[in-house]
Amino acid sequence: MRGCVVLSGGDDVSDSFARSMANMLSSPYLAITRKIFPDGESYVRIPSQALEADRICVVKTLDRPQDKSFLELLLILDTLSSKGVKEIVAVVPYLAYARQDREFLENEAVSVRTVLRAIRGAGASALYAIEVHKEESLRYFGGPAKSVSPFEYMADFIDIGENTVVIAPDLGARDRARRLASKLGVDYDYLVKVRDRITGEVSYKPKELNVEGSHVVLVDDIISTGGTVAKASRILLERGARTVTVVVAHALLVDGAWRKLRDAGVSRVYAANTVKPAEGDPVIIDVAPLVARELA
Amino acid sequence: MRGCVVLSGGDDVSDSFARSMANMLSSPYLAITRKIFPDGESYVRIPSQALEADRICVVKTLDRPQDKSFLELLLILDTLSSKGVKEIVAVVPYLAYARQDREFLENEAVSVRTVLRAIRGAGASALYAIEVHKEESLRYFGGPAKSVSPFEYMADFIDIGENTVVIAPDLGARDRARRLASKLGVDYDYLVKVRDRITGEVSYKPKELNVEGSHVVLVDDIISTGGTVAKASRILLERGARTVTVVVAHALLVDGAWRKLRDAGVSRVYAANTVKPAEGDPVIIDVAPLVARELA
Repeated sequence: MRGCVVLSGGDDVSDSFARSMANMLSSPYLAITRKIFPDGESYVRIPSQALEADRICVVKTLDRPQDKSFLELLLILDTLSSKGVKEIVAVVPYLAYARQDREFLENEAVSVRTVLRAIRGAGASALYAIEVHKEESLRYFGGPAKSVSPFEYMADFIDIGENTVVIAPDLGARDRARRLASKLGVDYDYLVKVRDRITGEVSYKPKELNVEGSHVVLVDDIISTGGTVAKASRILLERGARTVTVVVAHALLVDGAWRKLRDAGVSRVYAANTVKPAEGDPVIIDVAPLVARELA
Repeated sequence: MRGCVVLSGGDDVSDSFARSMANMLSSPYLAITRKIFPDGESYVRIPSQALEADRICVVKTLDRPQDKSFLELLLILDTLSSKGVKEIVAVVPYLAYARQDREFLENEAVSVRTVLRAIRGAGASALYAIEVHKEESLRYFGGPAKSVSPFEYMADFIDIGENTVVIAPDLGARDRARRLASKLGVDYDYLVKVRDRITGEVSYKPKELNVEGSHVVLVDDIISTGGTVAKASRILLERGARTVTVVVAHALLVDGAWRKLRDAGVSRVYAANTVKPAEGDPVIIDVAPLVARELA
């Protein structure tokens, strides 16, 4: 049991995540002082007790406004490392900028690389994040880094009925479906594109499973505007699913997403406590104990 | 004459600054492609011609929203350095976060250090900024860095009448007043606090000069909410100044600043083209040729 002093980055989501972690670890909980100047610049001050720790866990989610959260995280890390704190673990429940993880078009910025390098450069010795869009991206951190998958843990908080299946909206999320399904003890699958051989028309269907009459649990890492999940929900209901429940790690829910999900027939959304949804009313599951377990 | 390919960071202020620099240098002007996703994340793409340069000057001001501008600057630098561009000069007309340049209270984040280290870490070989709050802060960059003072240059664009003096609102800005005054060929001074020996009452006055009947040019590095400059203007008018004109590098003008300056009797504001003022209508002077001169 090494534990760590838990220092919150001072926003509501980070505060609550850090409190829960500290509680699980029976560790001290501290929070930075944080304010915003009239011109929009952030100000951060570290409590002096934080500097006496051998190992400090800085909890700062990169929730919206992502750029401000990022800058504040760098301020905290840089201050701690300048003060000589040796082991600084960055706990970033939501790692923003993770979806741009390669050049989709030539010479695009690979934002996850930029963000991870800067976090490392500011002084983080190690990094934990919840369900990073692509786990491989963490190599850019250049040090020990782990994406903690919350789906097995979240399974215990999800109400399911008889005849439930777990579906990922695409191949990229298949492993997420597998994790959740194995814990729920049900089958899983993912949606694939199919083209009608005669008409040439494109549609989507689960690769193997028949969802007719099933309660479907749709799994993905993130909901931003809700497009992917809404589309998948419609497909599944058209194919005879009785209900569609959504489970995600990061429910940003921006730009009319909540309404879009409702209109697409989604009956309930479960999400981890990594961000504050901009809209709607998902069921929030505290996954901080999972990270605490890693750090114990 | 080495020159450089000038790459704009894609916002209006940086575009116009970069164009002017490129024009002065007879260098190619390029701009990044920039967009913002619905959840608020920035996207950046570099034009391929930029990657063929031996030396590239990235022009990106850290204007509001400062955190977003900062993140975008890192995206650009990280992309260029990942692509193997050897010499990357960061031209940051307005270096945000520069006023928190030390711990005023124990364990405060020294934001100028955090920002400069991150810019260096993302790949900048050298840095130029206009009128950094404290020039010494640039040591945190850890490489060649220069604060370019615009006041001598701006003097040529400022209308002054007979009997003009230049005043700094405090000792910290005295050197700014000296630079402007020497080019205008007039006297300068700065305001000091004076305490009445009998009543104990505190007031402010120019240290040496009598401003009665003078046209005063007030000089400072930055106007944010306008408090410092408005107060100085009132003092000078009370002491008999005929007019007060303000000259600053960075006219953020937030939170009612423009009205505050008007109410305090300021007749005109001149500012460099380093930020887009949130309010009001200062006379903007293009100082990009000054930076171009440094890079030629």
